[in-house]
Amino acid sequence: MIVVLKPQTTEEKRDHLIAWLKSQGVDIHLSVGTDYTIIGLVGNTAGIDVELLESLEMVMAVRRVGEPFKQCNRMFHPADTVIEVGGVKLGGGNFCMIAGPCSVESEDQILEVARAIQASGATILRGGAFKPRTSPYAFQGLRFEGLKLLSEAKRATGLPIVSEIMNVNHLPLFEDVDIIQVGARNMQNFDLLQELGRIHKPVLLKRGLANTLKELLMSAEYIMAGGNEQVILCERGIRTFETYTRNTLDLSAVPKLQELTHLPVVVDPSHATGEAKLVPSMALAAAACGADGLMIEVHNDPAHAKCDGAQSLTPAQFDDLARRVRAVREALA
Amino acid sequence: MIVVLKPQTTEEKRDHLIAWLKSQGVDIHLSVGTDYTIIGLVGNTAGIDVELLESLEMVMAVRRVGEPFKQCNRMFHPADTVIEVGGVKLGGGNFCMIAGPCSVESEDQILEVARAIQASGATILRGGAFKPRTSPYAFQGLRFEGLKLLSEAKRATGLPIVSEIMNVNHLPLFEDVDIIQVGARNMQNFDLLQELGRIHKPVLLKRGLANTLKELLMSAEYIMAGGNEQVILCERGIRTFETYTRNTLDLSAVPKLQELTHLPVVVDPSHATGEAKLVPSMALAAAACGADGLMIEVHNDPAHAKCDGAQSLTPAQFDDLARRVRAVREALA
Amino acid sequence: MIVVLKPQTTEEKRDHLIAWLKSQGVDIHLSVGTDYTIIGLVGNTAGIDVELLESLEMVMAVRRVGEPFKQCNRMFHPADTVIEVGGVKLGGGNFCMIAGPCSVESEDQILEVARAIQASGATILRGGAFKPRTSPYAFQGLRFEGLKLLSEAKRATGLPIVSEIMNVNHLPLFEDVDIIQVGARNMQNFDLLQELGRIHKPVLLKRGLANTLKELLMSAEYIMAGGNEQVILCERGIRTFETYTRNTLDLSAVPKLQELTHLPVVVDPSHATGEAKLVPSMALAAAACGADGLMIEVHNDPAHAKCDGAQSLTPAQFDDLARRVRAVREALA
Amino acid sequence: MIVVLKPQTTEEKRDHLIAWLKSQGVDIHLSVGTDYTIIGLVGNTAGIDVELLESLEMVMAVRRVGEPFKQCNRMFHPADTVIEVGGVKLGGGNFCMIAGPCSVESEDQILEVARAIQASGATILRGGAFKPRTSPYAFQGLRFEGLKLLSEAKRATGLPIVSEIMNVNHLPLFEDVDIIQVGARNMQNFDLLQELGRIHKPVLLKRGLANTLKELLMSAEYIMAGGNEQVILCERGIRTFETYTRNTLDLSAVPKLQELTHLPVVVDPSHATGEAKLVPSMALAAAACGADGLMIEVHNDPAHAKCDGAQSLTPAQFDDLARRVRAVREALA
Repeated sequence: MIVVLKPQTTEEKRDHLIAWLKSQGVDIHLSVGTDYTIIGLVGNTAGIDVELLESLEMVMAVRRVGEPFKQCNRMFHPADTVIEVGGVKLGGGNFCMIAGPCSVESEDQILEVARAIQASGATILRGGAFKPRTSPYAFQGLRFEGLKLLSEAKRATGLPIVSEIMNVNHLPLFEDVDIIQVGARNMQNFDLLQELGRIHKPVLLKRGLANTLKELLMSAEYIMAGGNEQVILCERGIRTFETYTRNTLDLSAVPKLQELTHLPVVVDPSHATGEAKLVPSMALAAAACGADGLMIEVHNDPAHAKCDGAQSLTPAQFDDLARRVRAVREALA
Repeated sequence: MIVVLKPQTTEEKRDHLIAWLKSQGVDIHLSVGTDYTIIGLVGNTAGIDVELLESLEMVMAVRRVGEPFKQCNRMFHPADTVIEVGGVKLGGGNFCMIAGPCSVESEDQILEVARAIQASGATILRGGAFKPRTSPYAFQGLRFEGLKLLSEAKRATGLPIVSEIMNVNHLPLFEDVDIIQVGARNMQNFDLLQELGRIHKPVLLKRGLANTLKELLMSAEYIMAGGNEQVILCERGIRTFETYTRNTLDLSAVPKLQELTHLPVVVDPSHATGEAKLVPSMALAAAACGADGLMIEVHNDPAHAKCDGAQSLTPAQFDDLARRVRAVREALA
Repeated sequence: MIVVLKPQTTEEKRDHLIAWLKSQGVDIHLSVGTDYTIIGLVGNTAGIDVELLESLEMVMAVRRVGEPFKQCNRMFHPADTVIEVGGVKLGGGNFCMIAGPCSVESEDQILEVARAIQASGATILRGGAFKPRTSPYAFQGLRFEGLKLLSEAKRATGLPIVSEIMNVNHLPLFEDVDIIQVGARNMQNFDLLQELGRIHKPVLLKRGLANTLKELLMSAEYIMAGGNEQVILCERGIRTFETYTRNTLDLSAVPKLQELTHLPVVVDPSHATGEAKLVPSMALAAAACGADGLMIEVHNDPAHAKCDGAQSLTPAQFDDLARRVRAVREALA
Repeated sequence: MIVVLKPQTTEEKRDHLIAWLKSQGVDIHLSVGTDYTIIGLVGNTAGIDVELLESLEMVMAVRRVGEPFKQCNRMFHPADTVIEVGGVKLGGGNFCMIAGPCSVESEDQILEVARAIQASGATILRGGAFKPRTSPYAFQGLRFEGLKLLSEAKRATGLPIVSEIMNVNHLPLFEDVDIIQVGARNMQNFDLLQELGRIHKPVLLKRGLANTLKELLMSAEYIMAGGNEQVILCERGIRTFETYTRNTLDLSAVPKLQELTHLPVVVDPSHATGEAKLVPSMALAAAACGADGLMIEVHNDPAHAKCDGAQSLTPAQFDDLARRVRAVREALA
């Protein structure tokens, strides 16, 4: 971190600031020029309050040089993280199709979908049991019952499963779930993240609707700081002024995240667009730009889905898409 | 809700759709014109999936007529809600100054600030004990210790207190807290909202950084649907592309919310701007446009605050601001 | 368009409104129900002021059913528009690579780049002569001299050329330019659009940084309303809160625009990302999601480019990218 | 500007970069530390391409210390600019009410409105003659005829007039117009700005819908760089994800701009909100936060206005508002 002082700053004031900075546990590298006086801060600057420094009368500017995230920073861990779950690898060149219904609705539904996506090449089954809904009057998921049906589908197919957690107290219910998903609205539910830092299970962390990539990485850092290094990042669209699509899928997040971090990055085009018609093209785009995986909603009867039917592919549509995704990946291999 | 069918739709398809809609528990009012066929949905349409309807081949457009929120909707409850806590009224013409430090740091600090803001006319004391921080390496608050110090300040001054909850399991710790605050990042932590719907205590609900007013009202609805009707809404800045200010304070939210709902609306200019220099002008603007209250960060020594010092006013600055806020309100009375 | 009246509206008021609507040149279809009274507006509703209608006391809601754009609407012209320029086709399945430097700097530079991109398979040469720069102190382009150099490169290679116009008075200077580009900042420079509606030459219209797809289509409509139907739409990134990338490339705009309009849609990943490292992955993504063409900045010496060097590929990088783009397209054919 | 090099950078590479930077006309201040090597750039850095520097392999970070705008920078011109037009002063403590119809429609209309707003205390008359409309099918203004009617109203009342220019070629038509307005959509029409830099008349420059304050100041700089120092800045709402209001009025722009620049700042709450009901509260807020003036739409018959009737106040509503604005300003004097 670099602190630039205003030209008129007295030596006394400057030394007072330096003493205070040292008391915060950082080393100081002073550079006095004719125009600028620059204080370089070395060491662990993560605890330094940038905005406070900026508000001081003598300070002209404060600029971070390094990134505030450490454990997920590729600079310190150049090799890709590979997540392994139930024999399936994700990251480090291992591409992975995650598919399944928005919410688990019945035994027949989840089994039928699980078998269909498996036949089409998906290797992880998704299914919502606890559903975050904007309206308190909307269907909230089958809850624990949904998790049990998901487990049945896992046993029947051998597919590892991923499902969203909304409440730190539900963690014991997720014992059989292979990857725990943190939804966009909980990306900065720091208490939940800290709790997930204590478990030994991969976490799929979705980017919040208005969160920067830096914040996404800081949230991954929360989990990793607790000791759990198995974090999968997920781009699922951000909120912009555009209204023709539900959200704006930010695909440049994929190569940018892969530059910044060693964690795998998957893309969810279903929630991003909110419209089944747009899912295939966005899934192909995600594969082409190097995503480590896709997460796609598939429903055996979208028109009667209890939730997000509008964005679900039929098994047949998914099969066609999976084939085309493979073709794109082979073309770029 | 209105569903407009495409011109070519057959009667059979139309009747099939109508039957399905009826099975969802709504009444139907059909209007067949030369150009449009319009299906009007009457009754509780909150459970109808608009996006699913839109995705049907025969449907041209779906438009909501009414708002999806009920209990907080002013149309059904024209009179302002007045929140009363510790002898202090908020809403329905009762203006209220909430002030205090970003985080409680010590007994001396909170007592000194509490007495200062009380002397300046504030009637509710704020203070953070559990702090949501973007970085896991930043100060996270004194936690329960902070709540105890806040309680001491309450006893010493008689001021009711407000503090932020981050975890549904902490609720028992908040017994002495008069108003429970839900922070911007938890505005759509639906499990937390549902839990707060079961208590008998006012909740101060902050608008999320990228949440629409409609979503804010739907989150209030989550609390009210559980039986707790004491919700205070708080505008605290939204995220935009502008970088000179931390967030963009959306003051038009104040009159717009007051038109849509009977709940009181307060404004937090401290978090919105992130800069003490901008707080007074935004606080005055909020008072001028009719906010029911203000929530201002005050610290006895901002330069050494453990959190958000850059946006904190000194007691003297707050005193001056409080005087000017009163002057504006009197001028508009 | 549909106007929904409030339940209590008197017949007299209603009839007064209907008379006024008819005087605006639209036909009326009235539907009186027990709960809603709905006025359907039929005919040319483009001149109706939706916001004014909404502001009337008796009006509950106004909803557009159709789109306000006509000539570019695919509903009325299902077949793809194919633009042909100098033997090169764009749209309707004809994919096109447009490449060249951000700004024309010298004869050597533009000739070298033109030959290189042609060898790599690009079929249209881009080059800026008039440069819109945020700062008045930055390089503003070679202006007319730049256009002349671009023409020389066209003669030397046979490649048709595209260049940006910034001022309606410069139109005579663009006689030899095959496709006239309207930059993002001029997307709603309506006087310029109207003027371009009177010429017989393709226009490449870039989406503004904060413009919706609907507004982009309305701007295309301005050109088409004047008689010029050769419009190419270009997605080049929108402005969001994210700061790691210069803009956020909105690739879902590609399939959505192709659904809404018959005009070709190209993607400019260079301006969107602002960073050469991100350009290939975003170009591949654009090709995979079905864009009709790409517009890529290529410079023979990016480190010494007078403008936007950071986002320019070298000819070798472009050659590699072009090869991979072809592979993706073949895989999806 | 500060350039931070990566730790491993060789001296040779560093010196090569320094030589190149010097060739760009800036002075260099080198600071070699154990951890960082920092190159300070002194002098006119406005022409340095930050993104290009950042893209160099050896560069870790580039940070601007000063602002890229010079002439409008308060640091170099601490005293407020005061604009004087037809005996009316704006800026430097001189508050000013600008009012009038969105578009000039007839002699009767403009005269009636002009007399009404004058009676209520407005000192400048606004009226649109050339109207930028999203749709080519909407009313585009009376054009030169509108300017003539505006001139008549000026002669009849003595009020100076302000009207929007959309085309650089229309400048001769604006001879009698006292303040030339540049609309939000033309804020970065750099050719127009440059032309306005050559005239001797105040320019009212509106912030673009997605433009940062820095870009607004850079556009003011375009005008000032040409020699015209009479620029009035106008905040009129920015585009966000919120849909209940047309735009989001960014009132923190007022104190922030006043800190950054010596130019006067006025606020247009009519276009920002798009709704007459919200205009008074936002106007009062703007006055309370220290705006140098207001720009309000007033129409004698809003329900029949040809443009933006929904956001226009009646003369009676404006009279009431003007009285309240004065009360707020007196309370804060």
